[in-house]
Amino acid sequence: MAGERIQHATIIGVGLLGGSIGLALREQFPDIEVAGIGRRASSLRAARRVGAINTAHLDNYDVAARSDLVIIATPVGAYENILRAIKPHLKTGSLVTDAGSTKSQVVRIASRVLGKGGQFVGSHPMAGGEQKGPAYARANLLSGATCVVTPTTQTPKNLQRRTEKLWRKLGMKIVTMSPASHDQAVARVSHLPHILACALMEVPRADDFAVSATGLRDMTRLAGGDAEMWRDIVATNRKPIIAAMRTMRKKLDRIEQLVEQDDSQAIYRALIQAKTRHDKQLKR
Amino acid sequence: MAGERIQHATIIGVGLLGGSIGLALREQFPDIEVAGIGRRASSLRAARRVGAINTAHLDNYDVAARSDLVIIATPVGAYENILRAIKPHLKTGSLVTDAGSTKSQVVRIASRVLGKGGQFVGSHPMAGGEQKGPAYARANLLSGATCVVTPTTQTPKNLQRRTEKLWRKLGMKIVTMSPASHDQAVARVSHLPHILACALMEVPRADDFAVSATGLRDMTRLAGGDAEMWRDIVATNRKPIIAAMRTMRKKLDRIEQLVEQDDSQAIYRALIQAKTRHDKQLKR
Repeated sequence: MAGERIQHATIIGVGLLGGSIGLALREQFPDIEVAGIGRRASSLRAARRVGAINTAHLDNYDVAARSDLVIIATPVGAYENILRAIKPHLKTGSLVTDAGSTKSQVVRIASRVLGKGGQFVGSHPMAGGEQKGPAYARANLLSGATCVVTPTTQTPKNLQRRTEKLWRKLGMKIVTMSPASHDQAVARVSHLPHILACALMEVPRADDFAVSATGLRDMTRLAGGDAEMWRDIVATNRKPIIAAMRTMRKKLDRIEQLVEQDDSQAIYRALIQAKTRHDKQLKR
Repeated sequence: MAGERIQHATIIGVGLLGGSIGLALREQFPDIEVAGIGRRASSLRAARRVGAINTAHLDNYDVAARSDLVIIATPVGAYENILRAIKPHLKTGSLVTDAGSTKSQVVRIASRVLGKGGQFVGSHPMAGGEQKGPAYARANLLSGATCVVTPTTQTPKNLQRRTEKLWRKLGMKIVTMSPASHDQAVARVSHLPHILACALMEVPRADDFAVSATGLRDMTRLAGGDAEMWRDIVATNRKPIIAAMRTMRKKLDRIEQLVEQDDSQAIYRALIQAKTRHDKQLKR
């Protein structure tokens, strides 16, 4: 049954995530052949060197014709051109999915380019790292992390099931939700935190760093992320991000008001409430 | 010369930080006797068990009469009562310092209670940890971390020098600045991040945590901190905190505006600017 045996896969975009997917596919499907498509010869070479792909294809999409599985792992801004480029080559019954961080726009573009109920199911494997590029790829990057699969009402059940099975096979925990619900949730737990880290990075004066400690370091780590990827995330998830920023502003305005009023008891209650929620939801 | 040989020290407040100071003092001054004063018998017992103090004194300040060095390591809200309690016992020439996270108000209270140019020099050893209480104390908690020493124009140079020498002896890097400059800087690099973490903790809906990853975890870690300590920090540093929150709001409003205008190029520039500053100032 298609999807249970994957003999040939194409990965478009062989960065840290694409490369790690290639390594994990080759580990889980020992007979698979993985083709890598990219725009940079150096990345393709590095991806081959670490064993993430078997064959390298510089900006050439013909090889997708052989694939049971096509995974797009580029910044979201490149999807439309990529989908148009692979469309004429896609094999009947093949599955096209992705690793993009936003889903509503991606799914809309795929439906427009490939046709409704086509071969595309959106995925968001939530894995990454400080380093960038295929040289840092590792088969276990995905393992134990969450992958959100985002079918629509148009998605054939069979295709959704194959997508979930694929990521589960690579060691991921599956969460299934609509593209819109995904985008709203990640705006609150991922995109807003990223924007906060970037904005916070602009607050200290140069001399302040002499008295900064692990708190600021942790709170700004995300600001070191890949700017191109984050530009595309913001551009493709504007409304949920604005909503999350407005919720955040309300929370901050409320605290500022309490500080202005010197209401220590209410501040204590707010601190306890945040701590309780933190310790329940996120404490290691 | 007083300050170079410390034969007896009193630590008031034997939590993680007070306990670690006791261990470090005993490591660096092998003949020293360290007295611990606290409000809870259980903390005093734990501090003795780990070797942070030699003698334990439950809410009794007489022992300070024997000390060359008195260190207050309680939440800042308790300082005024403590200073009044130790004042009648203080030995001539002894040094009183502290480990509090805010300095303007502390220094003002000490000057009011002990007299201008008295025996007090404010310190802020910037060390801590996830765990709370003397059971987690360790001699090397301070080592390699920064200690801000905050003399005023009234502080005798000799007393300032002894304070700097003390913390340096315990392995700390010394930064000297005025109480006001300290409070403004830590509002930006420590207090604002803490408030952001607490506010961010209230943004996600319960279901969102299923799709949250290391980003949210890092960005809310500070919200797990000790609420009593943070209530006192906020209460004693209100104006600098409000100023830092307003600067942050301006940065966030600017980003929100760019997202609303769908100005991807300007967003990219903002992301690059934050990343450049991050990688220069804070990258490991």
